[in-house]
Amino acid sequence: MKKVNLFESAGFGDLTHKSFLVHDSPYFKIINFNFKPGQGLPIHSHEIEGQVSITVIEGEGEFLGKDGAVLPARRGDVLISDIAEPHGIKAKSDMRVLVTIAPPI
Amino acid sequence: MKKVNLFESAGFGDLTHKSFLVHDSPYFKIINFNFKPGQGLPIHSHEIEGQVSITVIEGEGEFLGKDGAVLPARRGDVLISDIAEPHGIKAKSDMRVLVTIAPPI
Repeated sequence: MKKVNLFESAGFGDLTHKSFLVHDSPYFKIINFNFKPGQGLPIHSHEIEGQVSITVIEGEGEFLGKDGAVLPARRGDVLISDIAEPHGIKAKSDMRVLVTIAPPI
Repeated sequence: MKKVNLFESAGFGDLTHKSFLVHDSPYFKIINFNFKPGQGLPIHSHEIEGQVSITVIEGEGEFLGKDGAVLPARRGDVLISDIAEPHGIKAKSDMRVLVTIAPPI
C-alpha cells in the first residue's frame, strides 16, 4: 500500500511538461503529467494491446483524437482509449492529469 | 474513445453511497464512488492477483489499511494497493473517488 499526492509530487515547467511516475507494476502503469497552457501530448498510438485512461485532476484543455477530433477536457473528465487508437491532449490552463495504462507499456 | 465526467455521472445518496461504472474491459475496470460523510468502503481484500488504485477527485476522508492503519485521503491523493491486501476508505466530507482495478475483477 502506498500513497502519492498529485499536487505535491510534480510541478510545472515552462520549457516542457513535467511528469511523475506514480506507479509501475505488471498490472498497470500510472503517470501524472502537469501541463502549462499550450503544452500536452501530441496525438500518438502504439500497435499493442491494452487501454489508457486519462483523468483530468485540475485545469482544462482538449482531448485529441483521430481525424482531427477534439473533445473538451475539464476537471473530472475521464477519457478511455485503446492504446492502438490515436489519442492526445493539449492544455488551455495549468492542467494536472493522471494517466493509467493497462497492461503497462 | 469515450469520455465520462465524474461530476455529472453520479450524485450522492443519503442511505448509501452512489457508484457509477465508468469502464469495464479485459484490461481494467474503472468505477466512480461518491460518498457522503461517514460513508465508504469497509476494509476488504480478495485472494486474487492484481492491484487497485484509488484517486481522490474531490473531498477528504481516510484510507483504511490492515492492522487499523489510517492514512489521510485528500484531493489529489492516489492510493495503490494489492487486491489481496486489506484496503478501504471512509469519507469525512462529500467525496468523489475513482477506483481502477487491473486486471478487472
